[in-house]
Amino acid sequence: MVMDGLGDRAVKELNWQTPLQAANRPNLNWFAEHGASGIVDIIGPGIRPGSDTAHLAILGYDPYLVYTGRGPFEAAGIGIVGNKGDVAFRCNFATVDEHLVVTDRRAGRIKEPDTAELAASLSGITIDGVQITVKEATEHRAVLLLRGEGLSAKVSDVDPHGDTKIHEAVPMDRDAKRTAKVVNAFVKRSYEVLNEHPVNQRRSKEGKPVANILLPRGAGIFPDIQPFEERYGMTAACVAGVSLIKGICRVCGLEVVEAKGATGGLDTDMLAKTRVALEQMESHDLVLMNVKASDIVSHDGNAQGKVKVVERLDEMAGLLREKLPENAVVAFVADHCTPIEVKDHSGDPVPLLIYCQGIVKDGNLTYDEGAAAKGGLGRIRGKDIMPILIDKAGRSEKFGS
Amino acid sequence: MVMDGLGDRAVKELNWQTPLQAANRPNLNWFAEHGASGIVDIIGPGIRPGSDTAHLAILGYDPYLVYTGRGPFEAAGIGIVGNKGDVAFRCNFATVDEHLVVTDRRAGRIKEPDTAELAASLSGITIDGVQITVKEATEHRAVLLLRGEGLSAKVSDVDPHGDTKIHEAVPMDRDAKRTAKVVNAFVKRSYEVLNEHPVNQRRSKEGKPVANILLPRGAGIFPDIQPFEERYGMTAACVAGVSLIKGICRVCGLEVVEAKGATGGLDTDMLAKTRVALEQMESHDLVLMNVKASDIVSHDGNAQGKVKVVERLDEMAGLLREKLPENAVVAFVADHCTPIEVKDHSGDPVPLLIYCQGIVKDGNLTYDEGAAAKGGLGRIRGKDIMPILIDKAGRSEKFGS
Repeated sequence: MVMDGLGDRAVKELNWQTPLQAANRPNLNWFAEHGASGIVDIIGPGIRPGSDTAHLAILGYDPYLVYTGRGPFEAAGIGIVGNKGDVAFRCNFATVDEHLVVTDRRAGRIKEPDTAELAASLSGITIDGVQITVKEATEHRAVLLLRGEGLSAKVSDVDPHGDTKIHEAVPMDRDAKRTAKVVNAFVKRSYEVLNEHPVNQRRSKEGKPVANILLPRGAGIFPDIQPFEERYGMTAACVAGVSLIKGICRVCGLEVVEAKGATGGLDTDMLAKTRVALEQMESHDLVLMNVKASDIVSHDGNAQGKVKVVERLDEMAGLLREKLPENAVVAFVADHCTPIEVKDHSGDPVPLLIYCQGIVKDGNLTYDEGAAAKGGLGRIRGKDIMPILIDKAGRSEKFGS
Repeated sequence: MVMDGLGDRAVKELNWQTPLQAANRPNLNWFAEHGASGIVDIIGPGIRPGSDTAHLAILGYDPYLVYTGRGPFEAAGIGIVGNKGDVAFRCNFATVDEHLVVTDRRAGRIKEPDTAELAASLSGITIDGVQITVKEATEHRAVLLLRGEGLSAKVSDVDPHGDTKIHEAVPMDRDAKRTAKVVNAFVKRSYEVLNEHPVNQRRSKEGKPVANILLPRGAGIFPDIQPFEERYGMTAACVAGVSLIKGICRVCGLEVVEAKGATGGLDTDMLAKTRVALEQMESHDLVLMNVKASDIVSHDGNAQGKVKVVERLDEMAGLLREKLPENAVVAFVADHCTPIEVKDHSGDPVPLLIYCQGIVKDGNLTYDEGAAAKGGLGRIRGKDIMPILIDKAGRSEKFGS
């Protein structure tokens, strides 16, 4: 159970407690009393993880080896899982004038079904032997995937990130020349196709900004990630509301299971998610569950809101406590800290709590940053979590004899 | 003092204590009170060590760099310490019919002196420029050592591990072709020599199965291990009953000292072993003592038996407490956990306890998995132990100025 951005620092408004410490959390504390706690440097001490690199580490991959940027994981989040060597870009549908100056970077926050129709009109074309796939994402967002020989992610953004003329994609090294050429040709084509598109003709008549160009940014090459099942000999599922987390799990070969009511927002149905996770445990060896709500309130700097989210997380823990199979191994962890005062991820270690039959209790009675730092698991790295859980589950291989 | 397989998990039969926690252990606890404890990932978090890789790590070697399989250490265990590049095999003396079908994989559990005579008849021959050494081991077991240019351990087992026709050694890569050829020629020769051997003619008359072939398996190449004394500038001795542990220590250049009554079994004379270890401290800078009994009861899943073994280990600690030279540094550790419920090695960290004059006490009053996890040494790696002990002994070199 990954509680996104859960870890925090002492908050003045909470009488110098952390939100976790300030919350009523009988179930998490029960697990602490009957399990063992520790703190985890998800990437390394003082290193601020992204949610993407953090989840890679929690799944046992070394993000320094396999993380190639957010693009591929965003693409996978909306269902486009590329092959090794494919290059993915995050894109905006935007409005430009005839000089290609951006007049609305979000094309009036255009959304489905318009974006789906526009994406379809760009998808499937080939430029210089490179196959193009475009798929709409949330609101005005989309993903562009290039597939072909000798592609590189070392190209600069076309999106000018402001209301100026669009940029040319510039190759950042010699190997990226071809990719930059393809990207620039594609952007030109997107303007030609979209500017005349019936959807935009209709929008124009309705007085809405047209989405007459696609602006790629954040290129990333699909990494060579050994599928989870091949790596560990275990099947795995993911229950998450947030697209990026789904994408990471998909790229690692986990089955992404939809839970009704899991939105990735504050309105998410946490208990529904927990029930789906419990169900998935019947057919999968590992289930990763991510809850984003704790990160959302943290980015907002909302201390009281975070306390309330923790109390909802504790209800999830209560359901797990009630329904967990006897031989299950469960870990409660955060992917990173998002301190209320920082309103962004920090490099603080996150509290980890492992519970299973036979675990040697460490005397902790609560689950929080302070108690975890004195727990029996000591201080470990994010990539250590998976080997420990696998060993607790009796599935580890012996090295030597 | 390496207490083999000592670490454990909470055991229901022991009221959810570990065997170490359940045992009466006044002397180990005395050392805990006057020393400092910690937990050790012998290889890494969650990684299940073998006794061989674990002892390499405890001696300060990186098993990922120097461990080349069990074969060479088994060979060294019975006294054949090869050079770098020599290839060792574990072997059985077996009975085959005229079609080379195995009829008894242990040749009626043949043993010395028969095996010694048979081994001698195969030892010293040369095939294709490769020198052959064969030496008898426990019961029907033996070791085969090949010495020559360009050998490889990437050859499959001749031993079919069942009552079928013997296998051909197959090279697993191009570099192993020559080795496979030599092994196959040797096995053929072993049949020719042994089938006619007077020992077997006598056994045949006595109605006992003949040991008319030697079946190699588990090839391993002798690693390039820097001798302990060269590495650390210290002399070292090993007191162990188990052949594999002796082998590891021999390959690392430790002097293996026999202790009368040290059997590597439950019947071992632990106090005799301790007395020999104390004696050896007069002539060696480091003495490694291994006691196997705790691992044996663990593999049997015998919780009460393990508690009793711990109480015998505590008597050893008592003798150390009484006789230890004033300036000695002593470490109590396990090479791995062998939880009663698992009946095999696990990847759990092991409890470590270091005692010497001047050590900063950590407030622990007991030596066990739970207390160690909260001890002053924190959570370290197996290969960290040796540098720490060397430093406590005032023998470490300064890095920088």
